[in-house]
Amino acid sequence: MLIGGIEAGGTKFVCAVGDDHGKIVDKITIPTEGPDETFQEVKKFFKTYPIEALGVGSFGPIDLNTKHETYGTILNTPKTEWKHYDLLGRLKADFPIPVYLDTDVNAACLGEYLYGAGKNADSTLYITVGTGIGAGFVYQGSTYQGTSHPEMGHIFIEKRGDDRFTGSCPYHGSCLEGLASGTAIEERYQVRGDLLQENETVWELEAHYLAQAIVNYIMVLSPERIILGGGVMKQEKLYGMIREKVREMVNDYVAIDDVEELIVAPELDDEQGVKGAIGLVFRDEDV
Amino acid sequence: MLIGGIEAGGTKFVCAVGDDHGKIVDKITIPTEGPDETFQEVKKFFKTYPIEALGVGSFGPIDLNTKHETYGTILNTPKTEWKHYDLLGRLKADFPIPVYLDTDVNAACLGEYLYGAGKNADSTLYITVGTGIGAGFVYQGSTYQGTSHPEMGHIFIEKRGDDRFTGSCPYHGSCLEGLASGTAIEERYQVRGDLLQENETVWELEAHYLAQAIVNYIMVLSPERIILGGGVMKQEKLYGMIREKVREMVNDYVAIDDVEELIVAPELDDEQGVKGAIGLVFRDEDV
Ligand SMILES: Nc1ncnc2c1ncn2[C@@H]1O[C@H](COP(=O)(O)OP(=O)(O)O)[C@@H](O)[C@H]1O
Ligand SMILES: Nc1ncnc2c1ncn2[C@@H]1O[C@H](COP(=O)(O)OP(=O)(O)O)[C@@H](O)[C@H]1O
Ligand SMILES: [Zn+2]
Ligand SMILES: [Zn+2]
Repeated sequence: MLIGGIEAGGTKFVCAVGDDHGKIVDKITIPTEGPDETFQEVKKFFKTYPIEALGVGSFGPIDLNTKHETYGTILNTPKTEWKHYDLLGRLKADFPIPVYLDTDVNAACLGEYLYGAGKNADSTLYITVGTGIGAGFVYQGSTYQGTSHPEMGHIFIEKRGDDRFTGSCPYHGSCLEGLASGTAIEERYQVRGDLLQENETVWELEAHYLAQAIVNYIMVLSPERIILGGGVMKQEKLYGMIREKVREMVNDYVAIDDVEELIVAPELDDEQGVKGAIGLVFRDEDV
Repeated sequence: MLIGGIEAGGTKFVCAVGDDHGKIVDKITIPTEGPDETFQEVKKFFKTYPIEALGVGSFGPIDLNTKHETYGTILNTPKTEWKHYDLLGRLKADFPIPVYLDTDVNAACLGEYLYGAGKNADSTLYITVGTGIGAGFVYQGSTYQGTSHPEMGHIFIEKRGDDRFTGSCPYHGSCLEGLASGTAIEERYQVRGDLLQENETVWELEAHYLAQAIVNYIMVLSPERIILGGGVMKQEKLYGMIREKVREMVNDYVAIDDVEELIVAPELDDEQGVKGAIGLVFRDEDV
């Protein structure tokens, strides 16, 4: 059985055809234009494959509450052509097969859970630290979905006394994303993150904020595995710094069996999103 | 079918016999002594009833990871006779019927979900603000359980600039519990919470901290219902203050359909714990 998967991102759509063992048969990347132009290319790619179902991990915010009339619709986004766009309606119109829809981060988390760094972990959290900060969660084999989708990047944490930056989040100022995303780093130091590589205080502060957030996720979700991805995590020294700070901050209040096993890097390079999108088909409910 | 339920607390054990519709047939409250004295009373109470299964919501911290050798054991607790006590072993020895074990807060949450303020909510969070702060969570009809149990009272939040108190948590200082539990209020103002009733700035700060924490829980779990109980919430004005602050802090980043429906008071008086303990029998897996 062939399954289609789409990682629908704000800058690119990755489309792939694969199976339920994580094998990818074919794959393309399409720059994200308006919905019509983009879906024309998407349809063209899938046309030659007899896919029997389609899984989609989408950028957001997107309404995933099945009780809402706007279910499946992109909500507020700076990309005006996609604002309030009925993504699920379009998918169903273009593909008369079962369609499964979730967030991009949930799909990425499911990909790592099925085939990567989350394998055999009953509860897997996947955090991406990039332009923004987002997270997906897999619990008991399925992606987590509350009444709306989580927006874990926007939790409040304690700003450190020596940090004079007011935060980059347009909604909350100094929420986690406002203090620790790639955008926040760029605004705080007025230079791109990759150019700050040698500046230790930058990464010490970054690790401090990410560790605080991870402690909060541990206290709330008690995940078995926490995967940290995204552009900022290309600073690989962050992993060790974060592990140490998480251990210090938890201060033995909850048992952490092995922090090296708990906090890890992704394993699927850039394919967790599309592999997870395909995985949605056999892990989520049909919509 | 008759089911036994125990709310095993640090100061009292509430034992009840009931059915799977929330009806309570008989109930007693036993002060918590050492394990032997306590279980002698517990056994005596249940002896006259032909209960077919037993559900227990226990104080903690307790090891609920089935992969651990210490599964079912009370961990660190100031109550020395219960420290490292094999609670599940004792329950199984005393009651040769199926036994279901969870945390006290998860049981309370399940009770409210089944029969109280969480009815018909797909995901229900129950927070108790008392001597400490704890929370239980019901997701898709069952109590939530990560690799360990959540300790949601110990998340980090932002301390307000005008608050000079360093926090009462022995592990984290100014975590949520350290800033906003009944103990924290007492230590900050050197007087018991109920005597501060008329002091508006006390409750304004309290609502500020609880609202921040609730925003974090919303961002991570996206619950459909949030129930606030415990001694501190006897200051009923807190509900309105918290709702308003949560709305302000979320700042429309995620949609809150109706904050009065989202953040509510418990409905089962002091019976959510024991009714939820009975509910564990038909909602959780046998252990
Ligand atoms: N080597 C690096 N070191 C630090 N920051 C980086 C590095 N590479 C990219 N970034 C930052 O990561 C962000 C982009 O994250 P990425 O995950 O690639 O994209 P997006 O979040 O938009 O999907 C930018 O803010 C960029 O400055
Ligand atoms: N009316 C009240 N106003 C404010 N605080 C109160 C009130 N009643 C009790 N408290 C506080 O609540 C805490 C006890 O919480 P409770 O839920 O009753 O017990 P526990 O958490 O030990 O199970 C104490 O710190 C007490 O000071
Ligand atoms: Zn934010
Ligand atoms: Zn604490």
